[in-house]
Amino acid sequence: MLWICKQCGFRESVRKYYWRCPKCGAPLDVEYEGSWNPRGKGLARYASSLPVSPTKTLGEGLTPIVKMKINKIKIWFKLEYLNPTGSFKDRGASLSLYFAKKLGYKTAVEDTSGNTGIAVTAYANLYDLKSIIYMPKQAPKGKKNLVKILGGEVIEAPSRAEASKMVLEKIKEPGVFYVAHIWSPLFIEGNKTIAYEAFEQGFKHGVLAVPIGSGGLLLGVYRGYKDLFNWGLVKEIPFILGIQGCSVQPVYTAIYGKPLECGESTLADGIMVSNPPRVKEVVDVIKRYGNIVLVNNDEIIKALKILYKHGLIVEPTSAAVLAGILKALDYGIIDPGDNVLALLTGSGLKTHDILDKFLNSR
Amino acid sequence: MLWICKQCGFRESVRKYYWRCPKCGAPLDVEYEGSWNPRGKGLARYASSLPVSPTKTLGEGLTPIVKMKINKIKIWFKLEYLNPTGSFKDRGASLSLYFAKKLGYKTAVEDTSGNTGIAVTAYANLYDLKSIIYMPKQAPKGKKNLVKILGGEVIEAPSRAEASKMVLEKIKEPGVFYVAHIWSPLFIEGNKTIAYEAFEQGFKHGVLAVPIGSGGLLLGVYRGYKDLFNWGLVKEIPFILGIQGCSVQPVYTAIYGKPLECGESTLADGIMVSNPPRVKEVVDVIKRYGNIVLVNNDEIIKALKILYKHGLIVEPTSAAVLAGILKALDYGIIDPGDNVLALLTGSGLKTHDILDKFLNSR
Repeated sequence: MLWICKQCGFRESVRKYYWRCPKCGAPLDVEYEGSWNPRGKGLARYASSLPVSPTKTLGEGLTPIVKMKINKIKIWFKLEYLNPTGSFKDRGASLSLYFAKKLGYKTAVEDTSGNTGIAVTAYANLYDLKSIIYMPKQAPKGKKNLVKILGGEVIEAPSRAEASKMVLEKIKEPGVFYVAHIWSPLFIEGNKTIAYEAFEQGFKHGVLAVPIGSGGLLLGVYRGYKDLFNWGLVKEIPFILGIQGCSVQPVYTAIYGKPLECGESTLADGIMVSNPPRVKEVVDVIKRYGNIVLVNNDEIIKALKILYKHGLIVEPTSAAVLAGILKALDYGIIDPGDNVLALLTGSGLKTHDILDKFLNSR
Repeated sequence: MLWICKQCGFRESVRKYYWRCPKCGAPLDVEYEGSWNPRGKGLARYASSLPVSPTKTLGEGLTPIVKMKINKIKIWFKLEYLNPTGSFKDRGASLSLYFAKKLGYKTAVEDTSGNTGIAVTAYANLYDLKSIIYMPKQAPKGKKNLVKILGGEVIEAPSRAEASKMVLEKIKEPGVFYVAHIWSPLFIEGNKTIAYEAFEQGFKHGVLAVPIGSGGLLLGVYRGYKDLFNWGLVKEIPFILGIQGCSVQPVYTAIYGKPLECGESTLADGIMVSNPPRVKEVVDVIKRYGNIVLVNNDEIIKALKILYKHGLIVEPTSAAVLAGILKALDYGIIDPGDNVLALLTGSGLKTHDILDKFLNSR
């Protein structure tokens, strides 16, 4: 397995860990020989097509798909929120923390406003590593509590940006592993397994609706279907419908040249990533294989109510995906006859505080 | 399919619904021809061995098993908390609400202090039924919120007993389906699928550690393994280790003739059922196939910390199971060499308020 940098051409056999290219600072990827040989359960089912093969599990992966008709369109919801810590982040965390253990690290650190902190702490526990999570003050209380109760150390920062600065200081110490989920190729590799599973669950073509935060989820499912295409298992890459919130729209802006005024999307806190390091690759994928829509709080609340009314307990960020599908339908970007796979990324069980506000606004 | 009453011998073809025997008031069972023919996903996989076969799904069932060594004993944890609404109650709710819809009911009602209310509301939504949940005032706020946000009507009662009285008034109205999970044979039937899955996941003999509230979970997994035994698939029924909390110990008392002084178990709110209607059958199963231990808050907290330290995010009631296993090990009821299957029943993602208290007590 090699580290490779698509920007400067850096290549090195993977013997040590880099959270980004040591030469030019761009995000790294990993290169290895993958093949299709699914067997067994969970992420380990796809060991032959992953760069590392975790030895332990908390039950991540093989999430169910449920099919529902909503506003006349048939949607396949993939319930990523039924992963062990309540979000798809468990897939990347599983690979990443296993890798940290394998390389001999003792402590994992991460800057995050929520779900990733819980996932990192849980998998750090699984591999007997210490975890320190830098979170902005305004992160949901429930998510902070969950990190603490799992035994992770929570360090509060005045803001998300400040949290990142603090973590960069911390990793100067020896033995400290920076998970860096918005940079890490291991999170993208973990997310490929969503595509592999969806394929085995019967989704072979159609529209893939996916929220864009760092872009790691979109790139993961894209690369997963690209693998399936290269192995001759699907005839085409699905149409990729990217969804961002109106408040933070770096990918939309990069594609269309300027931002679109469409309101606020503060409810979609999970996808508010201002400067995703892999924006260029995300833009390339969307230009070639799909399109992007933006959604605001009103649309998210409307979609959230529909999902709850169908018994799907997601967090508000996940509702952005359904909001995006309904908007794309309105705009004619997708068709009522399309097969749509929608990734529901995070659990609504964690978000009492947000639920409370939502209840009061009813 | 027949309704049967083991107490008074009542038998009737299932054309209408009874929440208990219309002749003598005892809990009913259902009689039907089951066979082993697993195919497909979720609960539908076991359609050939279930009395009713739900047409819709929220992704319930096929929960993962993870194996861990804790205090020198190897435990298989079955992660029932990864069901769609965060507890094993989804299995029974899936069968029960489908059945209500099939019989033409419009409204489902239930008295519960938590998880069942969320499950009932979600599955009522799935089948487009209205739901009204009677909850005691002191039920966890997060759980009440979740019922409300799913669109269920929450009616607060001064106490758990008062909630039951109110529901019995309500069901005098026509078209109102009383889920009655602590009475319903459909919840026991749903829980049988836990045994079927565990068998397919490799658990063929050993110790089955299961918390006892109403007894429906214990009876479900027992009857599931009894089916497997009758079909010649396993050679024996597993040893059944029942676990109750010290505060509410009706099964223990019925077995040993008098209660045991062992402290408080208020953290195990999910298993505090004072008068389980099927106590006699539970006692019979335990006397013949296993034993029972009682646990208190200190032991539950200790077990909860161990589970969190391993990355398993359960609610405190679920930790009672691990506490019970460790106690049974101390007492020599089970052996370090035993294969133990432990059912972890409810998600810790919902219980911020309880987590908060727990955090503060650290």
